[in-house]
Amino acid sequence: MAPKWDTVADALKKADGEEVLLRGWVHWIHKLGKKAFIRVRDHTGVIQAVAEKASLSSEEWKAVKKLTRESSVEVRGRVRSDPRAPSGKEVVATSVKVFGYSPPFPIWGREDVDFLLDHRHLWLRSRRMTAIMKVRETLLSAMREWLKREGWWEVHPPILTASAVEGGATLFEVKYFDKKAYLSQSAQLYLEALIFSLEKVWSLTPSFRAEKSRTRRHLAEYWHLELEGAWYSMEDMMEVAEELVAYAVRRAVEERREELELLGRDISKLEPAFETPYPRITYDEAIEILKRKGFPVSWGDNLGADEERALTEEFEKPFFITHFPKKIKAFYMKEAPGRPEVVLGFDLLAPEGYGEIIGGSEREENIDRLLERIREEGYDPANYEWYLDLRRYGSVPHSGFGLGLERVVMWVTGIDHIRDTIPFPRFRGRIYP
Amino acid sequence: MAPKWDTVADALKKADGEEVLLRGWVHWIHKLGKKAFIRVRDHTGVIQAVAEKASLSSEEWKAVKKLTRESSVEVRGRVRSDPRAPSGKEVVATSVKVFGYSPPFPIWGREDVDFLLDHRHLWLRSRRMTAIMKVRETLLSAMREWLKREGWWEVHPPILTASAVEGGATLFEVKYFDKKAYLSQSAQLYLEALIFSLEKVWSLTPSFRAEKSRTRRHLAEYWHLELEGAWYSMEDMMEVAEELVAYAVRRAVEERREELELLGRDISKLEPAFETPYPRITYDEAIEILKRKGFPVSWGDNLGADEERALTEEFEKPFFITHFPKKIKAFYMKEAPGRPEVVLGFDLLAPEGYGEIIGGSEREENIDRLLERIREEGYDPANYEWYLDLRRYGSVPHSGFGLGLERVVMWVTGIDHIRDTIPFPRFRGRIYP
Repeated sequence: MAPKWDTVADALKKADGEEVLLRGWVHWIHKLGKKAFIRVRDHTGVIQAVAEKASLSSEEWKAVKKLTRESSVEVRGRVRSDPRAPSGKEVVATSVKVFGYSPPFPIWGREDVDFLLDHRHLWLRSRRMTAIMKVRETLLSAMREWLKREGWWEVHPPILTASAVEGGATLFEVKYFDKKAYLSQSAQLYLEALIFSLEKVWSLTPSFRAEKSRTRRHLAEYWHLELEGAWYSMEDMMEVAEELVAYAVRRAVEERREELELLGRDISKLEPAFETPYPRITYDEAIEILKRKGFPVSWGDNLGADEERALTEEFEKPFFITHFPKKIKAFYMKEAPGRPEVVLGFDLLAPEGYGEIIGGSEREENIDRLLERIREEGYDPANYEWYLDLRRYGSVPHSGFGLGLERVVMWVTGIDHIRDTIPFPRFRGRIYP
Repeated sequence: MAPKWDTVADALKKADGEEVLLRGWVHWIHKLGKKAFIRVRDHTGVIQAVAEKASLSSEEWKAVKKLTRESSVEVRGRVRSDPRAPSGKEVVATSVKVFGYSPPFPIWGREDVDFLLDHRHLWLRSRRMTAIMKVRETLLSAMREWLKREGWWEVHPPILTASAVEGGATLFEVKYFDKKAYLSQSAQLYLEALIFSLEKVWSLTPSFRAEKSRTRRHLAEYWHLELEGAWYSMEDMMEVAEELVAYAVRRAVEERREELELLGRDISKLEPAFETPYPRITYDEAIEILKRKGFPVSWGDNLGADEERALTEEFEKPFFITHFPKKIKAFYMKEAPGRPEVVLGFDLLAPEGYGEIIGGSEREENIDRLLERIREEGYDPANYEWYLDLRRYGSVPHSGFGLGLERVVMWVTGIDHIRDTIPFPRFRGRIYP
C-alpha cells in the first residue's frame, strides 16, 4: 500500500513550507488562549504542531480545546523550522481531526512497578518501552540475517512435548486431549534430529520454565534461539556464538543509537563486543579467580548470579567459560577427552554484570556412553528412545547452543530487569494482561 | 567458521580432477566385488562416490564393505564427469572414513502413515521431507523480508494467557503456578495493544487449538503469522495480504524449483499467484455460486472445507471472500457501514481446493459498539477490561489478519495433508516423538 500520510520522520526531513499530513497520538499538549502546542507521537518520533484558532474551522478549534494526552489525531499543516521546537522543526496546523479522545491517561511515569505491569497494555506506549522493542527487533533481525548468510536453516520444533529434556521441576503441564504433555524448555533434542537432513539448523521458539523464584533475569516464558550443527566441535560452535553476538550488537548500535541514547545506555561499553574472538577461560580458572576475589567456592559448585557478576568484572567484552564439571551439567554433554570429570560445555557471559546469555556444548554422539549418562542421572532410557535412535543410525559429532533473546536485549539496552525486554512478561504471579 | 569440507553442491561445481572432501550419509550403496558405489547425501543434494579396493587402505576397504544405508561418512576424492552418474559427476574416492554405522534403516518408503509418524525423527531424513522443510524456510524468509521492507515491526506477544480470544471449546489449559492459564490461539488482542506505539506490527508465534476432529488441514499446534496495522481499513489490509502472499510464492518458485519438482508440484499452477490484485467476491456472491453448483447452503451458513473447495474451482489464483454474516464471525469485527448484519471481515483462499490461508478484518474501534458485541456473544466484559482500554485511550481505526504458515506451505508444495508441512506435527493422538 502506498503511504497515505506522513510519519514524523518524514516531516522532519521536509523543507520549510512543505505540506504534511500526520497521524498519531498526543504526547503532550499545552493550550494557551487562542493557540495550542500539540506534540504528536507516532512510531518514528515526536514533533510539535502549533494550532491557532484563526487558522482552523470553529469546529476544529473546539475539538482542539478538548484534546487530551493520548488522544489520536490527524494533523495537516506546513513544516517550519523553529530552533525552540524540541526537534528543530514544527508543523503549523491548517487542519486538526480527532479520531479518538482519551480520558486522563493513567500513567505519568512515576508509578510503581506493579501498577505499570497491570497497565502494561498502556505502558507500552511509553518512549522507553518503544525504544526497547525497537532494539529487540534490530538484534533479532541482525541475528537472522547472519544465520541465513552463513547457511543455517530455520526450522520449527514442537512446543508441546511428551517428556522433559532436563529434569521436571520447572515444567509446565498441559492437558493434551486425554494425555499429559509439557511445554518445551528447549528445542535441542528436536534440532538434533533435524541435523541429519539439514545439518546446520536453528530455531526461535518460546521456551517455558516454571521458575518459582522471581529474579531480575528469569522469565517463565522467554524466546529461545537455538542452533545445532552436524560435524561441529565445541570450538567450532563457540566461533559461531561469538560471531553471531558480535554482528548483532554492532548492528544494534549502528541502527538504534537514538533509542540506546534515549535509554541512557553508555554505548562505549558495548563497542568492545564488536570484535572477536572473545576471551576464553576454563571453569577451573573461573574458580581460581573467584577464590582470589574471596568467594567461598570450591570446584564442582554451580556459578550463581553473584559469582557470574564478579567474573564479568574481569572482562570488557563477552567471554566464555568452558569445561564444566560433569555433575553440574546436562547428560547429553560430551565428556572432555582424557578428563571424564568435565564436559565439553561452554557458557557465554555478557560483561557489566549481565552474565550468561548463551549456554552450549558438544553432544555425546556415542550411544553406549549416552545410555550410561542417562542411567547415571537416574532417568529412564525408555523416555529417550527416539533420541537414542539418532546415535543408532549414522551418528555424527555435533554441537549446539541456546541463546536467551531477552538476556541479550537486557544487556544491550542496559536495563536492570528482564521484564522490560518483552511486551507482556510472564513470571510467577503475572499472567495479566 | 571457514568451511572445513565441501558440500555436494560444491562438488558438482568442480572441474574434473579437482579434489573434494565430502561429509554426509549413505543414501544408497551397491557393492560389486572390488568396487563400491556409494551415493552420499548431505543437505545440498546427493552425489555418487566410487570406492575401489585398490585405491584404499585395507582398513578403509574393510570399513567400506561394512557400510550400510544411513551410515555417516567422510569421503575424500577427485571429481570426474560421468554421464551414467545420476548427477552427471561422480567422485573417485581416495579415502573413506566412517563416523557411525547404521543397523538396517527401518524406513524404505512404503511404510504406512502411522509408522512414519512414529519414526518421524528418522523420516525427516527423506528427500521429500527435506524438500518441504526448505520450501517452508524460503516462504517464511520471503515473508519476513517483505514485512521488514514495508516497515512492519516484529514483536513477541505472550503464549500463556489468562483468557480466550474466541470461545473456549478448543483451548489447551495449563497449570500456571497456582492459577489456570491457556495457550494462545491468536496474538491479535496483544498486537492491537502494540499498534499504539509501533503502529504496524506483526508476530510469528505457535498457536494452539485443541481440535477434536482430525482433518487434512488442522494441527493442534501451528505457526501463526499475524499482522495488525493502525489506520488500516479492511481494503488496505487486503492489499497487504495479497502483496505478502504474491511475493512469498514467487520467491519460493524462484529459489526452490528443484525441491518443488522433486515433490511433483505443477509449478504452472502457482504462477497466477505472482500477480496482484487477487479477485474479490462477497460472501453473498459466494453463496450464489454455491447454490448454482447445487450446494444446499443458505445465507448465514459457515463455509466448510467442501464449500471452500468448490469455490476455488472458479479461480486460478488466490481470491478474497469479504463481508461475512456477523453471526458467524468474531465479536471484534467491525460492522459494515449501513449493513449491520455483515462485518468487514475477509478470508483469502488458495486455489486448487486448498481453501483458507488467511483470515482478517477491520476491528471495531468504538468502545460502546464493542461492548455491545461482547455482551451479544454472551461473554463477560470484565474479561476484556484491558482490551477495552485500547478503545478508551485514543482509539484508532485498525485492521489485521492471521496467516497459517502450514496452510501456505501445504498449498505451495502441493501436498495433500498438513502433517507433512511441519517437522513434528501435533494433533489429537500424536505427541511422540
